Amino acid sequence: MRALAQANSGDAVGYGADPWTDKAAAALRAAFGAKGGVFFVFTGTAANVLGLSLLLRPYEAVICPETAHVNVDECGAIERILGNRLHTVATPDGKLTPGLVASRLGDRGDEHRAQPGVVAISQVTELGTCYTLAELKALREFCRAEELRLYVDGARLANAAAHLGCSLADLAAHADVLSFGGTKNGAVGAEAVVVMDAEPAASAPFLRKQQTQLASKMRYLAAQFLGLMEDELWLRNAGRANAMALRLADGVRDVPGVELCQAVESNAVFARLDPAHISRLLRDWQFYVWDPAGSVVRWMTAFDTPKPDIDAFIADVRRTSESG
Amino acid sequence: MRALAQANSGDAVGYGADPWTDKAAAALRAAFGAKGGVFFVFTGTAANVLGLSLLLRPYEAVICPETAHVNVDECGAIERILGNRLHTVATPDGKLTPGLVASRLGDRGDEHRAQPGVVAISQVTELGTCYTLAELKALREFCRAEELRLYVDGARLANAAAHLGCSLADLAAHADVLSFGGTKNGAVGAEAVVVMDAEPAASAPFLRKQQTQLASKMRYLAAQFLGLMEDELWLRNAGRANAMALRLADGVRDVPGVELCQAVESNAVFARLDPAHISRLLRDWQFYVWDPAGSVVRWMTAFDTPKPDIDAFIADVRRTSESG
Amino acid sequence: MRALAQANSGDAVGYGADPWTDKAAAALRAAFGAKGGVFFVFTGTAANVLGLSLLLRPYEAVICPETAHVNVDECGAIERILGNRLHTVATPDGKLTPGLVASRLGDRGDEHRAQPGVVAISQVTELGTCYTLAELKALREFCRAEELRLYVDGARLANAAAHLGCSLADLAAHADVLSFGGTKNGAVGAEAVVVMDAEPAASAPFLRKQQTQLASKMRYLAAQFLGLMEDELWLRNAGRANAMALRLADGVRDVPGVELCQAVESNAVFARLDPAHISRLLRDWQFYVWDPAGSVVRWMTAFDTPKPDIDAFIADVRRTSESG
Amino acid sequence: MRALAQANSGDAVGYGADPWTDKAAAALRAAFGAKGGVFFVFTGTAANVLGLSLLLRPYEAVICPETAHVNVDECGAIERILGNRLHTVATPDGKLTPGLVASRLGDRGDEHRAQPGVVAISQVTELGTCYTLAELKALREFCRAEELRLYVDGARLANAAAHLGCSLADLAAHADVLSFGGTKNGAVGAEAVVVMDAEPAASAPFLRKQQTQLASKMRYLAAQFLGLMEDELWLRNAGRANAMALRLADGVRDVPGVELCQAVESNAVFARLDPAHISRLLRDWQFYVWDPAGSVVRWMTAFDTPKPDIDAFIADVRRTSESG
Repeated sequence: MRALAQANSGDAVGYGADPWTDKAAAALRAAFGAKGGVFFVFTGTAANVLGLSLLLRPYEAVICPETAHVNVDECGAIERILGNRLHTVATPDGKLTPGLVASRLGDRGDEHRAQPGVVAISQVTELGTCYTLAELKALREFCRAEELRLYVDGARLANAAAHLGCSLADLAAHADVLSFGGTKNGAVGAEAVVVMDAEPAASAPFLRKQQTQLASKMRYLAAQFLGLMEDELWLRNAGRANAMALRLADGVRDVPGVELCQAVESNAVFARLDPAHISRLLRDWQFYVWDPAGSVVRWMTAFDTPKPDIDAFIADVRRTSESG
Repeated sequence: MRALAQANSGDAVGYGADPWTDKAAAALRAAFGAKGGVFFVFTGTAANVLGLSLLLRPYEAVICPETAHVNVDECGAIERILGNRLHTVATPDGKLTPGLVASRLGDRGDEHRAQPGVVAISQVTELGTCYTLAELKALREFCRAEELRLYVDGARLANAAAHLGCSLADLAAHADVLSFGGTKNGAVGAEAVVVMDAEPAASAPFLRKQQTQLASKMRYLAAQFLGLMEDELWLRNAGRANAMALRLADGVRDVPGVELCQAVESNAVFARLDPAHISRLLRDWQFYVWDPAGSVVRWMTAFDTPKPDIDAFIADVRRTSESG
Repeated sequence: MRALAQANSGDAVGYGADPWTDKAAAALRAAFGAKGGVFFVFTGTAANVLGLSLLLRPYEAVICPETAHVNVDECGAIERILGNRLHTVATPDGKLTPGLVASRLGDRGDEHRAQPGVVAISQVTELGTCYTLAELKALREFCRAEELRLYVDGARLANAAAHLGCSLADLAAHADVLSFGGTKNGAVGAEAVVVMDAEPAASAPFLRKQQTQLASKMRYLAAQFLGLMEDELWLRNAGRANAMALRLADGVRDVPGVELCQAVESNAVFARLDPAHISRLLRDWQFYVWDPAGSVVRWMTAFDTPKPDIDAFIADVRRTSESG
Repeated sequence: MRALAQANSGDAVGYGADPWTDKAAAALRAAFGAKGGVFFVFTGTAANVLGLSLLLRPYEAVICPETAHVNVDECGAIERILGNRLHTVATPDGKLTPGLVASRLGDRGDEHRAQPGVVAISQVTELGTCYTLAELKALREFCRAEELRLYVDGARLANAAAHLGCSLADLAAHADVLSFGGTKNGAVGAEAVVVMDAEPAASAPFLRKQQTQLASKMRYLAAQFLGLMEDELWLRNAGRANAMALRLADGVRDVPGVELCQAVESNAVFARLDPAHISRLLRDWQFYVWDPAGSVVRWMTAFDTPKPDIDAFIADVRRTSESG
């Protein structure tokens, strides 16, 4: 917010030809080691649509986990705006592996089938897990060998960097295009599409405008990233959110009737509980019930979740569990 | 073919305003009890695209079996041309049930999710099975109660009518829009989209043209259906194909190492065999290996498959099986 | 900006279920007399795409002036995201009339032609002119009689209301869907899509999400409109911008070699000048050269353009003109 | 038709892997000098959609004459199926020139504008005129210099070759992709998309299937072209149609009140007449009234138009004219 107020002083040229945008884009290009370019948009869905559109031909499909945001949570934006198909793969932990991708390559060369063109992963995944750098490297090498491009939905990339203790460039080294989320990490509403190579980046200005995402007052988007990049605020925010998730996980780990379903590697905790207990907790707290059966929940922490709230919540989980 | 030659004599007005088209459309409207209209197109994929486009809003999804032709065999035509998503459901036998459809209705009202709008089934299914009339009725009633429209991919609808011993109108009574396949039943290349009610039919001429399927010499498409409708040739052709499939199934049923995987209710036989035996059979015969593991095959019969070919094939399966 | 800072205090539920969004939407619904709903998006292009998508069937075309923003300045977003055609009409002043619309209705009922479905106008137009209320009424009545829907691109609707001295409801009375621009009237980046009737509004939440425009922190968009609606700031901003344009027009009206090309009815002045003079002015000032020949310019004023800047510019135009 | 009957004897593998398709495609590749490939589809609209889809990126526009079939007569198929915009240019005779194309290149590099990518011409044009080989060469060289690709809608390419006395290869030498129409030259319903280079051809099988145009019994499409290519039947048919148009033009040229509007360079005659005379002729003859004012007509001849019909029509035009 402080960054926003500074961008509001004085006039500026529209549509991104302003010093804020230049500076923010340069900062991100440097942090990611991106030779292509950085393009700001307003929402995570928009970032995924733009990012994938840079990598896809019209008859190609995107291989992604069944749980992927592009498959589940974007009201069919990929299909509507890009017209491409998703080839989904069931995963235990939200992560693709070379083997899982290979299982969807059988249709190659068959004109009756959309051709696999891009592998899309989320880092952090929708199940709160992280790919290790070794896993990313293996996936990328497999993709290269198979002439597949690799897209990373990084709505929570900051949380992955915080968890892995690596740089953004370490993560980006294994991708063709990534998004880098600001909104879930303290920004008002700003996402960046990071394009590693020059060739796909050349289309990005036109595709961003066509996809309704060119801000006339771009400096307000850029200012949010300038704020996040200053003194690595993005990393501190994400680290704090991750720490709160770990505190929460540790606090409920031994509560009878509570089972952690996924490794806690970001700012999300997935747990299995008695559906009756879930209902009781929902009276006082807001969180997402993950499965249709109503027995798995996703508890998210944020950069500004107060420690006392976590502790109060843990106490409530414990109390609910004990009350039978 | 004879029908085609007759359509070639003399001049005719273009784009369907000719007596052949009128007569063929009237014959199909009567046979299906369709109050909307009948629209000829060139391919099965085109029929599915046109049929679904009459029933979908832009933010809606199609609930269909994982095995559906629209999901597997049309190179993403629905996603590309219509921009709609498919919500796929795993099935044991290629058939949807009210319960399976219900399992995909959880997202209703959630703006992050494409909204279920149409249920698409195939009759005959891609696994060679048929919905009984009672099953169709139950599915339609469920759809009505849930404000879902019902589309039937009838590329092999004739084979279903032949198997069930029912009329086309009996099948159509439980659908909003159906396709009726000519190509797989002896025609050169002609499919009909049958629209039961007037309202969706009003858009069909424009959508057919936009979807590249308006024939300038429509009489050649119509003539193929006139040929099929004459003396119920469509039913005799389908009945003959079904009988050949049954003959084949009966012939291999007791061969050691051959397991029939699906009920034989049309012109398709699905069987599980030793992959090595499959390879050997493929040296002399053309058929489709169904699964990635290479142990399930689909054997199709046609209206003109000669009985001796069936018997020779049965003998070959038996010989291959015995050779170890 | 002040409004934004207030929205930043405290937590809030995501995706628009917050008190700011409720309050801002209610204020706009009341101001427009809209029975449908109000939907916030980030950009003017997004507002046009969403607004038109509520009114179009897939085989329909949009009748609009050749100069329309949707035709000229959105990188083909309508064609790409909606798949609909634009039927453009040449106009002297950026305004459609019943007669001009009628000239594009000849194709009705011809399946080879996209069918006119929506008339799209801009109020203020791209040439800075305004439709009078009587002109709007006549156009709407013609549309009703012809079963055409009417969309208003209101990126500068505030300037029209200020010029005409009428309410937003007066303008909205003659439309099916309008956009209401915040960005060009002082906001950071926020546009509203105002849907007059309930039926098209029902699709809007899903289409907005699908079109990548659902803000997770919607309160920041809403807060901008709350700020604009408070004490009619929107009207004062627009009135001030209009007054500066008039001051500019009056100041250059009698300069030899300067010809005003369009009525000055908003915050834009269109003038014809010697191309050499235009080049000289562009050294010190930023404005848009309108025509390929380089002899017509568009001078825009904003809510915060200082009077001295206007006067300095007038003096420069005069000096340039006299210098020969 | 004779060709069709031959293709009907015996079995054949589906989807184009048959000897007819191989032979027909080879014959066309040789005739056009095409290193890419030849792809059969069912309609002229489909040929244009497929042909353009091989050459366009998503943010690009097609520069074409206002009269182009893709602009006027395809119910918005390009916009719907490809999502690309058309940039139309007014022409006196249906023909683009380097100068006319250049007039639409002003937006290059501006992210608010769809970027010109392909120039689409028709040979024969929709006004019955032909580009000379020199005109084609000049246009192609201009396109190359401007990095634009050139598509030729050749629904009546045969008529152009007949008029110009040149080979198909002569015409193809100046294009990236062409269609070659069979339907308007005696075929039942078959068009070919001829791709000159290998790179765009690689996408064609998938795009054809996705665009609903893959024939399972491809041999029937191929057989039509085999028939047309045998002993240059395509050229004799087109030459005969052209000769009939010339006979018609010569017959009415000196009739008072009849003015030929376009050069007669194919099988079309455009004439201006008294609207009352047009109405009278329409009682007995079928032809297209070209302009909204009802004073320009298009008279088409076909490969099988009988000379006596032409002469009877000329006599009728003369009689109508004299009757006042």
